[in-house]
Amino acid sequence: MTERPVAARAFAAPVPADAPFDLESDVVVVGGGGGGLPAALFARWLGDEVVLLEKAPELGGTARKAAFWYWVPNNAPMRELGIADTEEDFLRYVARLSRPDRYDPAAPTLGLGEWEYALCRAIYESASPAAELLRERGALPYRHCRDVPDYWSELPEDKAPTGRVLVPEGARESMSDGGEVGVRTMSEAAARDGVDIRTGHRVQRLVTADGAVVGVEASTTDGATVRIRARKAVIFATGGFTHDRELRENFLSAPVYGGCAAITNEGDFVRIASSVGAQLRNMNYAWMCPIPLEKAVARRADLVGMFSVAGDSMIFVDKRGRRVVNEKLPYNELAQEFFRWDPTSGEYPNLVLIQVWDQRSQDHSASDEYGRLIVPPGTDDGHVIRGGTLDELAAAIAERLERYRAHTGGLALAEDFAANLRASIERFNGFAERGVDEDFGRGERAVQQLFNGLVKDEPGRENPTMWPISGAGPYYAALVTGGTLDTKGGPKATPDGQVVDDLDRPIAGLYGVGNCVASASARAYWAGGATLGPILAFAYRAANAAHAEPVREAAPAVTSA
Amino acid sequence: MTERPVAARAFAAPVPADAPFDLESDVVVVGGGGGGLPAALFARWLGDEVVLLEKAPELGGTARKAAFWYWVPNNAPMRELGIADTEEDFLRYVARLSRPDRYDPAAPTLGLGEWEYALCRAIYESASPAAELLRERGALPYRHCRDVPDYWSELPEDKAPTGRVLVPEGARESMSDGGEVGVRTMSEAAARDGVDIRTGHRVQRLVTADGAVVGVEASTTDGATVRIRARKAVIFATGGFTHDRELRENFLSAPVYGGCAAITNEGDFVRIASSVGAQLRNMNYAWMCPIPLEKAVARRADLVGMFSVAGDSMIFVDKRGRRVVNEKLPYNELAQEFFRWDPTSGEYPNLVLIQVWDQRSQDHSASDEYGRLIVPPGTDDGHVIRGGTLDELAAAIAERLERYRAHTGGLALAEDFAANLRASIERFNGFAERGVDEDFGRGERAVQQLFNGLVKDEPGRENPTMWPISGAGPYYAALVTGGTLDTKGGPKATPDGQVVDDLDRPIAGLYGVGNCVASASARAYWAGGATLGPILAFAYRAANAAHAEPVREAAPAVTSA
Repeated sequence: MTERPVAARAFAAPVPADAPFDLESDVVVVGGGGGGLPAALFARWLGDEVVLLEKAPELGGTARKAAFWYWVPNNAPMRELGIADTEEDFLRYVARLSRPDRYDPAAPTLGLGEWEYALCRAIYESASPAAELLRERGALPYRHCRDVPDYWSELPEDKAPTGRVLVPEGARESMSDGGEVGVRTMSEAAARDGVDIRTGHRVQRLVTADGAVVGVEASTTDGATVRIRARKAVIFATGGFTHDRELRENFLSAPVYGGCAAITNEGDFVRIASSVGAQLRNMNYAWMCPIPLEKAVARRADLVGMFSVAGDSMIFVDKRGRRVVNEKLPYNELAQEFFRWDPTSGEYPNLVLIQVWDQRSQDHSASDEYGRLIVPPGTDDGHVIRGGTLDELAAAIAERLERYRAHTGGLALAEDFAANLRASIERFNGFAERGVDEDFGRGERAVQQLFNGLVKDEPGRENPTMWPISGAGPYYAALVTGGTLDTKGGPKATPDGQVVDDLDRPIAGLYGVGNCVASASARAYWAGGATLGPILAFAYRAANAAHAEPVREAAPAVTSA
Repeated sequence: MTERPVAARAFAAPVPADAPFDLESDVVVVGGGGGGLPAALFARWLGDEVVLLEKAPELGGTARKAAFWYWVPNNAPMRELGIADTEEDFLRYVARLSRPDRYDPAAPTLGLGEWEYALCRAIYESASPAAELLRERGALPYRHCRDVPDYWSELPEDKAPTGRVLVPEGARESMSDGGEVGVRTMSEAAARDGVDIRTGHRVQRLVTADGAVVGVEASTTDGATVRIRARKAVIFATGGFTHDRELRENFLSAPVYGGCAAITNEGDFVRIASSVGAQLRNMNYAWMCPIPLEKAVARRADLVGMFSVAGDSMIFVDKRGRRVVNEKLPYNELAQEFFRWDPTSGEYPNLVLIQVWDQRSQDHSASDEYGRLIVPPGTDDGHVIRGGTLDELAAAIAERLERYRAHTGGLALAEDFAANLRASIERFNGFAERGVDEDFGRGERAVQQLFNGLVKDEPGRENPTMWPISGAGPYYAALVTGGTLDTKGGPKATPDGQVVDDLDRPIAGLYGVGNCVASASARAYWAGGATLGPILAFAYRAANAAHAEPVREAAPAVTSA
């Protein structure tokens, strides 16, 4: 997958409905990824005519690059298996993690704002009906991941620590191609059931009449403007702003380099909805993930987040050669460690960390799935740095970092890097021999073992996340930083996906679902699939609310001659 | 100062200029604090008629609560003293701190975005002319603080480490009343020179005609709507969004409880400017400061930030009784330490820290200036927790924290708090005896000694920030968290204060200065007065640009009968 041409961004201010439309439909869905495809399907199945506009040359968005786990509380297989997952318990778990500083189990909304609480209830209520309808219609058959734990399964608030994750049926055993499978099955269902799909259409702005949204204007890759009427509603599902540097730098709580969202996710809906008075929410947080520095700097469309940091004889060290983090933290948590601020030196000392591994991990943990950096021979290994000895490796790392100075605030290896690296390895090896990481607790939590990746089997080993790093080379390394899967912020929308104005009143005819609107998760990454599960719920609710909208007159009375 | 009634917020969408105005002027300034007063003065001195609208019952805003240092690069006293401060050096210093992860001394804009770079140049160019004009006209006479260091004076990029700070003439020796003095002298000059000042006027929305801003609508405290025409321009200087919980939680990089901005700073301009298509920038960062937990939770209008953590026989400990921070970090840096995330426990373990001191610090470091928590007898000491022994103190702290459980995510003292506190004191006392803090480097930097506050003189002591804590009671404590002075984000504006649309084109007639618009400082707090110095520069530039605007017709052609 490479970067492909899309129309350039133009002025986002709305235009009045005083010119003819090129096309019309009951519902216009903008974006054909993990939010737009189900929204279009749900709307179509309700009997609405649906046009789906996708900016890229192909459908799929970020979802196509994902494993497409989807987190569905109280899902049908859980109910069949008798696994209890009550709404009350679910809400406590999500509230505890979303606003830990405000969590109050005795408060009516558990410390969440009213809006966040309402959204979390909507997830509980609608994720399972949405998943079942997609399954029943053959658009997204699934298999149940009975044993996959939530990312905070040890918390006392998690009363259903495993069983909430579904994955597209037909995905391979490792599930890494779930997104390709899910996008394919939903796309096929959309074509089968009569959704009018148009790729290469970048929506630039809304068309409004009497304060309501009645359509959109899109640019095609050949420069034409197409004006599409929505009799009932426009539903945006255009993803976040991972690939807009200015938005990233001015909104996110951490100065990431980018991430692995679809390269077309440039915050279009932030601008389009703001221009009709929408409020923005949750602009500070993102679904985070470690990413390889070099692909991020190059803005490679094929960048995949490091969901799994594989290897047992493997550590991360900082520019001084010191181990500073638990390498097996779940990705959202690990990614934030790169942005710890040093209030004395005035820098992000961990902005780039160095993954170091030996031949054992190279032989037994290599894979090109889930963004792993220990890759097999014959795959894209431009990021791998090599050295026959630790000193040679250190020299090669120093040289590689030098190439990126202009992108890293001049980050360079300290002079004592190699010496400290040796000491770090020695200390780590002691922990590995005992299976206990006294510094960072590596491998202590279920989720850390879930994402351990491939490692050589060692019978009787209690902690499979660690093994001593060899005293003899060759050694390998790669540069890692923190990034996003995608951002979490955008216009504030009701539990039915209706985008609201600055007094929380719905803007008639305007809907949003997915990463293009504000998530109720605040800073939390509740579990694997906590992106797509809620997105399906909101797509379902938005399609139902849009279906109930009145047909709006597109052309207002002409106001001047 | 207590909370006073202001008009409630209403719908922020603009209204057309199709109804008569109650009042008109060349320039309308919204907000009468540290940005609005100078903007009104500069506009008036250019010959424009000026109406100034202030939401609160009195002028002054946040500035009145401040020491009103203002940071002016290459200021007149520096030039007279022969202290070199070139534009090139200044830009390197600010760029290095604002975007440390992107800083590149070899790049044309030093790693900053073009917009940020242009704003930093404008500060260098205009802060001194602005300060001189205010001085010459008697609106803000100053004295030069020759020896006050920048907050990062040890960085190699700081070529003028002292001398950039000015303070209102007539402020007391400690400078803590600089804001009252500066607001008074500027207010008197505004009245003297014919600025039409109207307090108790909350601007709700813009009045627009043909895409240009031609006035505002304000609500008065008695519920009336007043419509004011601006022939040339409206300049907003309404402060940040410190006192809007939903904006704080959804934009700031840290979940603060609030801060010491004027209680009327609720993000009004975020909503008003967004509704005409302004872009928002730097919404993630704030001017930060430690604050007392209890006043923040109570939303006390008299809350003052802890600029100076006084006391030598004094430490901060966490809920487990462990020292976790350098207590003498400059306030912006110290405030961020409260929000360190623990990726394993899923909490902010330092959300509330406990300042502990003994009778020595009580006797010698008490003051009610600069937000200090060690206060003299007879002053407001509701925040002080007391114990005859460390065990009694621990019990009293536990009881106090219990009252705030609903606001702190259930934060409570660990069972081994008292034991750990004893160990922390013992370790600290060893450092204090040697004058070297091996854990956190307390007192090592110039800025840490600048804000050391009052301490008992001990001849020959090299590090006056530390002294052993007594082995005998009584002991004292207070609860501290991180907050804002005010936020840094808002609409994006040009170096002349012109608010821009989503394609960076100025929205005709709309200006913003101060904390209500986006600061170019990103995450940095360059020096004391890095708020007000740049604000004066932008007030000066905005007034000049507004002066050059054409007079706009307020009433467009009537479009319908």
